[in-house]
Amino acid sequence: MTEGGRGMNTDPVLVEVVRGGFVESRHRGAVAVVNARGQVVLSVGDAARLVYPRSATKPVQALQLIESGAADALGLSPADLSLAQASHGGEPVHVQRVQAWLDRLGLGTENLICGAHWPTTEAAARALVRDGGAPSRAHNNCSGKHCGFLTTARHLGEPLAGYGDRDHPVQRRWRDALAELGDHPLDAAPEGIDGCGIPVIAMPLQALALAFARIADPSREAAARQAAMRRLTDAVWQAPHLIAGQGRLCSALAGRAPGRVLAKVGAEGVYAAALPALGLGVALKVEDGAVRAAETALVAVLARLGALDAADLEALAPWSRRGVTTWAGAEVGTIRPADALI
Amino acid sequence: MTEGGRGMNTDPVLVEVVRGGFVESRHRGAVAVVNARGQVVLSVGDAARLVYPRSATKPVQALQLIESGAADALGLSPADLSLAQASHGGEPVHVQRVQAWLDRLGLGTENLICGAHWPTTEAAARALVRDGGAPSRAHNNCSGKHCGFLTTARHLGEPLAGYGDRDHPVQRRWRDALAELGDHPLDAAPEGIDGCGIPVIAMPLQALALAFARIADPSREAAARQAAMRRLTDAVWQAPHLIAGQGRLCSALAGRAPGRVLAKVGAEGVYAAALPALGLGVALKVEDGAVRAAETALVAVLARLGALDAADLEALAPWSRRGVTTWAGAEVGTIRPADALI
Repeated sequence: MTEGGRGMNTDPVLVEVVRGGFVESRHRGAVAVVNARGQVVLSVGDAARLVYPRSATKPVQALQLIESGAADALGLSPADLSLAQASHGGEPVHVQRVQAWLDRLGLGTENLICGAHWPTTEAAARALVRDGGAPSRAHNNCSGKHCGFLTTARHLGEPLAGYGDRDHPVQRRWRDALAELGDHPLDAAPEGIDGCGIPVIAMPLQALALAFARIADPSREAAARQAAMRRLTDAVWQAPHLIAGQGRLCSALAGRAPGRVLAKVGAEGVYAAALPALGLGVALKVEDGAVRAAETALVAVLARLGALDAADLEALAPWSRRGVTTWAGAEVGTIRPADALI
Repeated sequence: MTEGGRGMNTDPVLVEVVRGGFVESRHRGAVAVVNARGQVVLSVGDAARLVYPRSATKPVQALQLIESGAADALGLSPADLSLAQASHGGEPVHVQRVQAWLDRLGLGTENLICGAHWPTTEAAARALVRDGGAPSRAHNNCSGKHCGFLTTARHLGEPLAGYGDRDHPVQRRWRDALAELGDHPLDAAPEGIDGCGIPVIAMPLQALALAFARIADPSREAAARQAAMRRLTDAVWQAPHLIAGQGRLCSALAGRAPGRVLAKVGAEGVYAAALPALGLGVALKVEDGAVRAAETALVAVLARLGALDAADLEALAPWSRRGVTTWAGAEVGTIRPADALI
């Protein structure tokens, strides 16, 4: 069994959950902030720690959709391209766009391997229940990414069946892009299977940050990649709701700071972000996998780097000043960045 | 700000989340196992760490219901007494019993201060949505406990209004019982407000374990307390579904091991258990507050102590051999106890 990163280093507390006069829970983790030349400009904890990036790789997984010409051939819009990078909430706006996309391909949800789950946006889940419906694979938070895989495979004449297999070209292609952008070989890296059925691969946190730094500042990339990167980030800023949804930090950041912050969550406490104005990439992993901590930590890091100003933080209050409340609505505590982050 | 326990000791990893060939996430924490004389027979991490017991105090909070005579005066059944100690799933069987209890008191859900939330049992939440309903305070996972408070206050002629206030007798009474059973003064302990609006108070993990050891082996307690403890634990074993619900470890343990294991979950990664056959109490806290880790850790500790045998563990497979699965249902990993627990 491969241990995460370089042995058993203990990462510092990134986020504290405070109730009344007491820190009730703590979340540890590591943060890497890197520029496009691979220099670590800030690290907290073990920046070399191996992590599965999970859905934080989606912007890299979508590159092939542009670079292959598949996006243009199918006439994909910015909203489609945002959805291709999404961990979406399964809201009607997400699901209908996935279904329309599959229609254009002459395919159906049965071609998606991602499995079905209830919408993660609670209001959407309740509406589906009220309508007597059940979730389809289009409701899966990764369904847009899977449409992207199918679109690329179809465009390049690759088999659609088995598109999620480790050695299918659409999987090899993003793994190669990730290794290149992270400047880190992935041939011998620990691997597993993601919740949506495609491979996941472990890489150092700082390599993930480097990949996002190069998305933030693609000036050294080949012209085609540069264009693909800019088109994908612009798509998220033009259609921020498509990358996540209602009440979600990825959408809130893209909506608040278009051109400045492109952030992507990954399961099990991962967040990555590209900061074009600063030419920096950020990656963080909460040791225990908690979303609440990854969100709080990301906002704190962006504030510390100056990527978010006071007005931004005010607009992002659900994440920047996160309360612990009773069921009756009284605020009785806070979830806050710990000393290591501020 | 009071730090948890004796400074910044780092607790060991209790639980690992494995995906493919890689430990993806880790949960740290502490465990204390104590006998009824207060001797620590097993500890992992810092057993003296201060924790909010949260809902793990419910068996202690319910003592006054018996000791005051209120339970007998109202003719409460074992099912009611299990519900009085519950963090229930808001299933019809829980909610209807709470409503019937309030009816007997001549009160309504407006007398509960616990706030409303959707049932935590997913099927119950969906059924409520399908019926066009909305959650009431009776659906709150703590509503049975609140019925207990109201019943005791009414029986003793104490005001019903303000029954959740720090200095109301029903709150002082359980705090006093907890200090006594844990053999630890709570007068100067850090305090806060729980999700259901009543006070929470911090105590050393091993003091919480001692309280449960004395529930496991009440032979040294005064006769009235001994009887109250036995009646409350018997109630849970007679009505295991009432203390939690469908798919919940507290109910599964009480149903599988009546007379042997009485376990009670608390929010933010707490679990406590009384083991009568061994005369032991167990308390654990997962540093980051994760339920999945608290459940996995508890089952591992109970197995290590011999409180659960191989057949029990098989019957408790959803917790003792917990898989990480894709949305399509493939098992691609595991959530398992770490070396510190086995």
